[in-house]
Amino acid sequence: MIQVSEDSIKKTDGSIDSPKGYQAKGIHCGLRYSKKDMGIIISSVPAVSAAVYTQSHFQAAPIKVTQDSLKKGAHLQAVVVNSANANACTGEQGLLDAYEMRQKTADILGIEPELVAVSSTGVIGEYLNMKKIREGISLLGQTKPCEGAFEEAILTTDTVAKKTCFELMIGDKKVTIGGAAKGSGMIHPNMATMLGFVTTDASVEEGALNRALREITDVSFNQITVDGDTSTNDMVLVMANGCAENECLHEAHEKWPVFKKGLELVCKDLAKQIARDGEGATKLIEARVTGAKSNLEAQVIAKKIVGSNLVKTAIYGTDANWGRIIVAIGDSAASVAPEQLEIHLGGQCLFRNNEPQPFSEELAKEYLKKSEVQIIVQMSEGEGTGTAWGCDLTYEYVKINASYRT
Amino acid sequence: MIQVSEDSIKKTDGSIDSPKGYQAKGIHCGLRYSKKDMGIIISSVPAVSAAVYTQSHFQAAPIKVTQDSLKKGAHLQAVVVNSANANACTGEQGLLDAYEMRQKTADILGIEPELVAVSSTGVIGEYLNMKKIREGISLLGQTKPCEGAFEEAILTTDTVAKKTCFELMIGDKKVTIGGAAKGSGMIHPNMATMLGFVTTDASVEEGALNRALREITDVSFNQITVDGDTSTNDMVLVMANGCAENECLHEAHEKWPVFKKGLELVCKDLAKQIARDGEGATKLIEARVTGAKSNLEAQVIAKKIVGSNLVKTAIYGTDANWGRIIVAIGDSAASVAPEQLEIHLGGQCLFRNNEPQPFSEELAKEYLKKSEVQIIVQMSEGEGTGTAWGCDLTYEYVKINASYRT
Repeated sequence: MIQVSEDSIKKTDGSIDSPKGYQAKGIHCGLRYSKKDMGIIISSVPAVSAAVYTQSHFQAAPIKVTQDSLKKGAHLQAVVVNSANANACTGEQGLLDAYEMRQKTADILGIEPELVAVSSTGVIGEYLNMKKIREGISLLGQTKPCEGAFEEAILTTDTVAKKTCFELMIGDKKVTIGGAAKGSGMIHPNMATMLGFVTTDASVEEGALNRALREITDVSFNQITVDGDTSTNDMVLVMANGCAENECLHEAHEKWPVFKKGLELVCKDLAKQIARDGEGATKLIEARVTGAKSNLEAQVIAKKIVGSNLVKTAIYGTDANWGRIIVAIGDSAASVAPEQLEIHLGGQCLFRNNEPQPFSEELAKEYLKKSEVQIIVQMSEGEGTGTAWGCDLTYEYVKINASYRT
Repeated sequence: MIQVSEDSIKKTDGSIDSPKGYQAKGIHCGLRYSKKDMGIIISSVPAVSAAVYTQSHFQAAPIKVTQDSLKKGAHLQAVVVNSANANACTGEQGLLDAYEMRQKTADILGIEPELVAVSSTGVIGEYLNMKKIREGISLLGQTKPCEGAFEEAILTTDTVAKKTCFELMIGDKKVTIGGAAKGSGMIHPNMATMLGFVTTDASVEEGALNRALREITDVSFNQITVDGDTSTNDMVLVMANGCAENECLHEAHEKWPVFKKGLELVCKDLAKQIARDGEGATKLIEARVTGAKSNLEAQVIAKKIVGSNLVKTAIYGTDANWGRIIVAIGDSAASVAPEQLEIHLGGQCLFRNNEPQPFSEELAKEYLKKSEVQIIVQMSEGEGTGTAWGCDLTYEYVKINASYRT
């Protein structure tokens, strides 16, 4: 990617509804006991939109419906989301239910159903309670927007809501990009892992937005791992409604790199929030790999490291156990020359020249007590760089995931 | 593989030294505090031998030395093994040390060094204490064989020794195949995962033995997973010394399928013992996949299932959480048609026709309380079958692996 000074992009404490022309709402319709369980994002006008989806063979019904909406013209005006039930592995009935969610949402907004995306997260293999869903959609139509309600409504076992917002200038127009996400692992009984929603008031050309989302997803959401499993419902969706009235952005526009960087910052910020809130996690682990044969190989290695149970437990135990990092790297399909690889942690070099390096265990242990830990791997295979994020593996993870469904 | 009646192959309570012409020993040389830490297998005559090794980029020094020995003529007469230290990531010095282990062992036996294989398991990134290793090899020379001593000497965090033995007839000659193994995860601080040793008194053609070992390893040792990490020291080695005086076996020999089946039973038995003794495990989990596009795809899916943290924790919690099995399958690169896939557990069908099936949670919970649990997946993509073995993920796993090195 082109290097862009991050000074030109400002983080704010805004959220998904900060960009012009968006509303976000969340309500309780009874799918969950008392927590909010249904939300909606509405744009005042149809927004150029793009989405990426789970690669699972078992794509859930709402994913199929959203794909259908976007196929019709790459514009969306609303996204309706429910938590508590993923509507996955529910066959023909599940698909009918997801289409009905789309139609009902279109009805209350008075728009075409193809302008509505549908998203669900929660239990796999149970049919939606459509009575509650219908009531919920009606309620969403009557409810006023309320800060934080949408972010809350999409959570499952997440312990905190995830939101972010950045601002940047395109000519003399201020453009805002907001985001919301959920995801902390596949859990009790079968929660769908991650959803990401991004809104912007920028005017963006359709193909450019689509390509940018794919490219950025690969270095942000696709580089996090909590437990290595890919859910049936994963989706990242971006809407760009043009309300900022900027010159329409496309890949040849001089300000394109700034916008794309802004989108990347939004996605990486949300991705890191998800990793940090992984089930039972006490720490965010970041692995940075440089000098790999390609960016892709660097990304693969970085993700191998943060995905290793052995690395995750060692960091939970504040143990500078670099042998486990070696094992994780050694197992990857990437090109690795052991003689030219270095591992650094908290400013100390642990491994170099294919030999252990003397280091202070005490300092390393102190470093590993922090809430954010960075593992740096330097290779000499090429210019590829990649980063991945994960969390530690704790007793709490086992506890959350071993509980019997009740 | 050709179907062979297992009736013609008898399991005995023998071990690695049961085949004619083998001795096995184990001693304490001080690498570990008090437990045995060095062992040797000796054949009375050079044995046709073959080995498969870890695919890690960081192959440990002993692996390189063993490869060198086998390159010189595919015959071995001894294998010397130490635990407590993997001699991995130890650079040039580590390699010199492993060569010295080989030479010293050859010296005490009065054989060529190329007839000796070397194997190490234990901490990664520390140099061997060669004074103790030298003393240990001398001691191995003077020590008498003792049942079970070798199996004990190769353990690290294993809680039980792994051994097996099968007998079969080749013409009027009784052929015995014995085995020993270790491995229960990569652990405190960095133990190397798995070693497997197989001895037989059969006379076998070199190329056939080599090919059989590779093929069988793919459906046995390569189909187990404790935590998904591949160590720097993994090795499976088979020696065939011909002392049974059978007609030399080769792939066109009418009794070849029986011998190969025997070898497969030995390897699968050891592999399952390793999975069952995974770090912190309380259960053996077996996943059987049928109807996949190919055996390889079936194996991949089976291994995905037993390797999933979510499946592992659910089974620890005796939770018939089939959505997690779906997620594990959905994530694989294999061909999967959700509409034609079935999941069975303890005699009940949980998922069929892309829809949840009614089943008794109570019966499923009872079934999951057993010490061996089998997950059956039926697909309709083809004739491919595959099985994989793993264990549950427990608090104890986190405890073992989060402990700080002391």
